[in-house]
Amino acid sequence: MQQTRCAVLDAIADGPVAGPALAEQLDVSRAAIWKHIEALRDDGFEIASDDDGYELVSVPEFGGTAIEFGLDAPFEVEYHDAIPSTNERARELGAKGKSDVVVVADEQTGGKGRLDRAWSSPSGGIWLSILLRPDVPPAQAPAFTLAAAVATTRAAREAGVEAEIKWPNDVLVSDTNENSSERNSEGPAKLVGILTEMEGEADRISWLVVGIGINANVDPDDLPADTPATSIRAEVGDVERRVFTQRLLEEFDDLRKDLDSVVPAWREYASTLGRRVRVDTPGGEVIGEAVDVAFPGTLVVDTDDGRVEVTAGDCEHLRPADE
Amino acid sequence: MQQTRCAVLDAIADGPVAGPALAEQLDVSRAAIWKHIEALRDDGFEIASDDDGYELVSVPEFGGTAIEFGLDAPFEVEYHDAIPSTNERARELGAKGKSDVVVVADEQTGGKGRLDRAWSSPSGGIWLSILLRPDVPPAQAPAFTLAAAVATTRAAREAGVEAEIKWPNDVLVSDTNENSSERNSEGPAKLVGILTEMEGEADRISWLVVGIGINANVDPDDLPADTPATSIRAEVGDVERRVFTQRLLEEFDDLRKDLDSVVPAWREYASTLGRRVRVDTPGGEVIGEAVDVAFPGTLVVDTDDGRVEVTAGDCEHLRPADE
Repeated sequence: MQQTRCAVLDAIADGPVAGPALAEQLDVSRAAIWKHIEALRDDGFEIASDDDGYELVSVPEFGGTAIEFGLDAPFEVEYHDAIPSTNERARELGAKGKSDVVVVADEQTGGKGRLDRAWSSPSGGIWLSILLRPDVPPAQAPAFTLAAAVATTRAAREAGVEAEIKWPNDVLVSDTNENSSERNSEGPAKLVGILTEMEGEADRISWLVVGIGINANVDPDDLPADTPATSIRAEVGDVERRVFTQRLLEEFDDLRKDLDSVVPAWREYASTLGRRVRVDTPGGEVIGEAVDVAFPGTLVVDTDDGRVEVTAGDCEHLRPADE
Repeated sequence: MQQTRCAVLDAIADGPVAGPALAEQLDVSRAAIWKHIEALRDDGFEIASDDDGYELVSVPEFGGTAIEFGLDAPFEVEYHDAIPSTNERARELGAKGKSDVVVVADEQTGGKGRLDRAWSSPSGGIWLSILLRPDVPPAQAPAFTLAAAVATTRAAREAGVEAEIKWPNDVLVSDTNENSSERNSEGPAKLVGILTEMEGEADRISWLVVGIGINANVDPDDLPADTPATSIRAEVGDVERRVFTQRLLEEFDDLRKDLDSVVPAWREYASTLGRRVRVDTPGGEVIGEAVDVAFPGTLVVDTDDGRVEVTAGDCEHLRPADE
């Protein structure tokens, strides 16, 4: 159904096409064409119809068909105006055996971040969860988290926002941007939150859900005041969320197909490397210089007691010791 | 409730205790004592009662209270005469936030092994799933699978069965045992199947279920003919499954508390080390000499093209190249 709708859009994108010709071209009935046109109009597509036929006038800023139309990545998009949690919905689909589905919402009413922390998701953001069934062991799951950070950073930079990545997956904007006067705080501010969840056997992932929450067309005032946060709106003004989401999904699709490319790509945008860091790990606090990231996402820290590899933990950038 | 029942059993295990004294000792009513005694009798405990009071005469061979009574490990036991799958039930409990529960069944009607392979679970076996919430990243999950193999091997050896471990977690009995005439095939035969499943974030396990299926008091003829299989009954005669399960859980509890002890313990029982092996991995076939296992369960193989570390795959022991 969705596929036929995209075919209808493709056909009428470059000029008017008469209904009968369209029906013949797509090998469906004229009644079916009419139903698809009506459904597309309901979804917010503006479609002119006159004696010359149907013609696509404009595409909605956001929505399931809008994201699938022109998307160069093999994902099915399930869109919700509002949903408690896109990750929860994607996990349900995972338990049902689905794959390569992206659950997208304009608003989440019960979003959460890592370690069950609350995550604010007002209308206007891009709240999405990508469901995958990668044939890799659970140990490689962190690579997908890093891939999500890279894909989102690239989409943000195309939108004009100089995003950077703090290990492992915080996408931040530093305070050097002169347009950032509308932020709710000074210093690096969070633009994106990422939460990867999975189920599987000890040596094989069954399904994996990468949740990505982007403060897109929202006011920083609507975000929690306890964490420095910014939004695309605050940095550069509103984006077309459809286009941003497409770029993100296309970049992510490229990275997941070649997991070895993730860490080198991550290094390009890393604000953590070369910095003094303090990482709270399950095994205790690690303080030192972050010198590298190793596959699938391990932070390599030079401490006073030697080199330490950190697989998980909250990372804080410290001021250089010599400042 | 279960705890009070175990306290009743402890009290009446070494000689008769009068009802009123028992009630006072456990700080419950005499009616409650009577209810517990009746429930225990329903569970198969033989309890004498005469003028001297209640006295434990015999403990059932298997069952939830029977396993908990005298168990030196902090697990709650949920017992089923028959259930589709103990792993499925344990996963349900995991999703509800439970931990340190062991689901045990006399028979599974829909058991499955790794990669969704069917796993036969006739009445008389020990089919159990241990639910844990360990504070470790998913990358360490294989250590729990190895721990399960070690714990089961130790319990089998105490029962007189010279079990060995084929990487990663096949518990086998080789054909040198002269009592093994009742087996359904020659060569090493499978005694135990292990399936570890989990859910979590990329860097943190939420819950982990270790499923262990032991061909205990079953006829090898009742096991699938397509895989060489044996049972404790075929090797040394029937065991008291209660005792076997307790030993297994106690060993497993010791190992999970000290994950660094798992690999050294595993090496003691490994039949794979020093052997030529062929491992089917997601990345292709690896052939060479298995020289070691590294934490959390990686097989180190010396191949013609150098040393390879294998994290997952089906392993086959080959005859030595010089034979």
